[in-house]
Amino acid sequence: MNKLTQGGPLGRRNFLARAAVAATVASLAEGAKALTSTRQAGVRTEVCAKPVDDTVPFWGPHQAGIATAMQAHTYFIAFDLVTEQRDDVIRLLQAWTTAAAQMSRGPARFDPKADPQARPAESGAAVDLPASRLTITFGFGPTLFQTKDGRDRYGIAARRPEALRELPVFVGDQLVPERCGGDLSIQACADNPQVVEAAVRRLARLANGVAVMRWAQTGFSGSFPHGQTGRNTMGFKDGTLNIPTQDASAMDKFVWAGEEAPAWMRGGSYMVIRPIRISLEHWDDMTTAFQEETVGRHKTSGAPMGKHGEFEALELERTQADGQPVTNENSHAAMSAPENNDGAQILRRAFSYDNGIAKIAERWPPWRQLVTFDAGLLFQCYQRDPRAGFIKMYKKMATIDMLNQFTTHTGSAIFACPPGVEPGGYIGQHLFT
Amino acid sequence: MNKLTQGGPLGRRNFLARAAVAATVASLAEGAKALTSTRQAGVRTEVCAKPVDDTVPFWGPHQAGIATAMQAHTYFIAFDLVTEQRDDVIRLLQAWTTAAAQMSRGPARFDPKADPQARPAESGAAVDLPASRLTITFGFGPTLFQTKDGRDRYGIAARRPEALRELPVFVGDQLVPERCGGDLSIQACADNPQVVEAAVRRLARLANGVAVMRWAQTGFSGSFPHGQTGRNTMGFKDGTLNIPTQDASAMDKFVWAGEEAPAWMRGGSYMVIRPIRISLEHWDDMTTAFQEETVGRHKTSGAPMGKHGEFEALELERTQADGQPVTNENSHAAMSAPENNDGAQILRRAFSYDNGIAKIAERWPPWRQLVTFDAGLLFQCYQRDPRAGFIKMYKKMATIDMLNQFTTHTGSAIFACPPGVEPGGYIGQHLFT
Repeated sequence: MNKLTQGGPLGRRNFLARAAVAATVASLAEGAKALTSTRQAGVRTEVCAKPVDDTVPFWGPHQAGIATAMQAHTYFIAFDLVTEQRDDVIRLLQAWTTAAAQMSRGPARFDPKADPQARPAESGAAVDLPASRLTITFGFGPTLFQTKDGRDRYGIAARRPEALRELPVFVGDQLVPERCGGDLSIQACADNPQVVEAAVRRLARLANGVAVMRWAQTGFSGSFPHGQTGRNTMGFKDGTLNIPTQDASAMDKFVWAGEEAPAWMRGGSYMVIRPIRISLEHWDDMTTAFQEETVGRHKTSGAPMGKHGEFEALELERTQADGQPVTNENSHAAMSAPENNDGAQILRRAFSYDNGIAKIAERWPPWRQLVTFDAGLLFQCYQRDPRAGFIKMYKKMATIDMLNQFTTHTGSAIFACPPGVEPGGYIGQHLFT
Repeated sequence: MNKLTQGGPLGRRNFLARAAVAATVASLAEGAKALTSTRQAGVRTEVCAKPVDDTVPFWGPHQAGIATAMQAHTYFIAFDLVTEQRDDVIRLLQAWTTAAAQMSRGPARFDPKADPQARPAESGAAVDLPASRLTITFGFGPTLFQTKDGRDRYGIAARRPEALRELPVFVGDQLVPERCGGDLSIQACADNPQVVEAAVRRLARLANGVAVMRWAQTGFSGSFPHGQTGRNTMGFKDGTLNIPTQDASAMDKFVWAGEEAPAWMRGGSYMVIRPIRISLEHWDDMTTAFQEETVGRHKTSGAPMGKHGEFEALELERTQADGQPVTNENSHAAMSAPENNDGAQILRRAFSYDNGIAKIAERWPPWRQLVTFDAGLLFQCYQRDPRAGFIKMYKKMATIDMLNQFTTHTGSAIFACPPGVEPGGYIGQHLFT
């Protein structure tokens, strides 16, 4: 028993003091539970063990995973349908919706009443793990709407949005067919890699006999402290000028499909995804000055060239004493600035990827070598209309962005991510009804 | 000002009470700082924002990353030396030691006085990130000690430990040369994937001209709550019977090389690493009962067959009413139990890996298919002598472990991980002096 609560007459102030102590001690005890301390090989690590609600709602007007703050991990996978039956597609989307909603609620649990002779839906890999902000985002590729052998595959050819067309070929593209396209896409994102893997496996299993996996890529972000712009693997702050997802009017203007879209797509968004290999070894061997000229920003602060604050405005017209622009006009920052793209903006949601090493050849002499990191950026962006977004911006950037010296687009796909659904509905429902 | 500390005469008890309140309130305020709350798309996430010492000391009698509690991410990479100069090898090990020690101290920072015309050692990808329990563990493969074209490559052929020999060929091995061997190995582990990637890139860059990357594999663990045995991607608790790293006598007996080893290797450990592909699709499609029979443990609890508690002892001799053993004698648990291996034990430190999908064929008919997950286990274990550890245990398991139906060893390597060093020394120093 706490000695502070022992004996003595209860005056009002004393009572208050003791009540406060009791409450505070109780809170402290809870606080102590929240921080558990472990000692291992001389290191002390404090970890949050307090249960928190780390779920992102699956149901809602927009799909989760678009305006959601970036998680630490992603697993993107594209599928091709092998069924000829429209009802198979609908049943798959229904099953995916149910499973995604269930997994998003986390944490996964085994059903204690499950029959041991049954094949459980859940692999168990995520059992005992928190939801970890799991989001699952579905998309429809242009090929879903195609006619095949003169036949309207699933009776939806006429419902393809105008905005959903195969991307054009860009200068410098070195696309590998195994990393392009897809009828359907799933992207799982969460703060735990085992949670995204378990989710993708469960969803892929539901597609057995109806769709086959076409291509996949995992990715990560650096989990930078909250409120700080994260750095990419090139060491630069990335996302300083990204659309703020809490700005509803900017999201409506640039990200969510509106009245111009078919009814089934309104509130959805078009997603472009491109694995971009980066020759990190060569980038790392450049001087800081050259890297900054290429990016068009300072490395340490993220500030525009010649400025000190990350969020100061770019001054693309400003020149040095010798008349040269302070910000190289072919720098990545200049090339992608809205003022150089008729105000165009996209919501970037790119993860880094690292597939280890590969025996590959570089594009630019003399940078050939036998073994390189197979690493780079799983570039991804959402927009209201790709023709006014990624296509418009990248068409010019592909030709003269200085960053291209270090980057190669090796894959490419576009998906219409339909709006979210309410309980009882399924993803893409209004495309099929 | 807190109203509890206002006015009133100070009796001894009252003073005590007030002092306690003040202290408690101060602690609470600190606790409140530790938990920051963010709201995004309706979800409330509490994160530990309190700075903690999350460094694992690099210097010490043993290398970090062996007895260290598993981190969330790993990046393993093997190198082949291309130099013929012994001094180049020594200089590389010195440079690796310095860089590893520096990175382990984290967080990385840019040098504000750095010359922008210089090529910085640090890519910047981990700048602003905490150390994240980064460990870097170095190893020497048998080929480092080989004579080449009749010449003792680096003058250390006579110093190869007896225990460091190429692993024998095991039944079922389907090894791909590109995932085997290596003169030198680096393994970076940390709780942040960007931190391990930045570390590996920096170390690989230091090897330019001296060694080339041979093979690499990233991996992850599920970050299960502290004090709980984590589940692997097969959904089973994994590591229940692992050697407790805080048990110094067990570590000395089974993990650290002792008097039997050459002086330069004492306090080090031999590491076996094997990427094991797991046909997860087929595993997931088995009944729980069959999975449990295969593993030899219950899935939900991790308990031995017929038991309820995870840490209850296996009863390998116990039979059912029909005379059949309760634990299948070919189950993974039975095959790997010390009592079935003359008491042999290894320190397992395996991560899961997931490279996306691949077009591959399965080994067991009728399980052929065009596309599968390229995923499984980056199996890794440490031991005092591989002949009494992994080789002894796996030789039998490779033939009749039921789990082999779902697993394929696709790569293999063995490395002597020398002891740790004190400041001023370098990894492997006593091998070269």
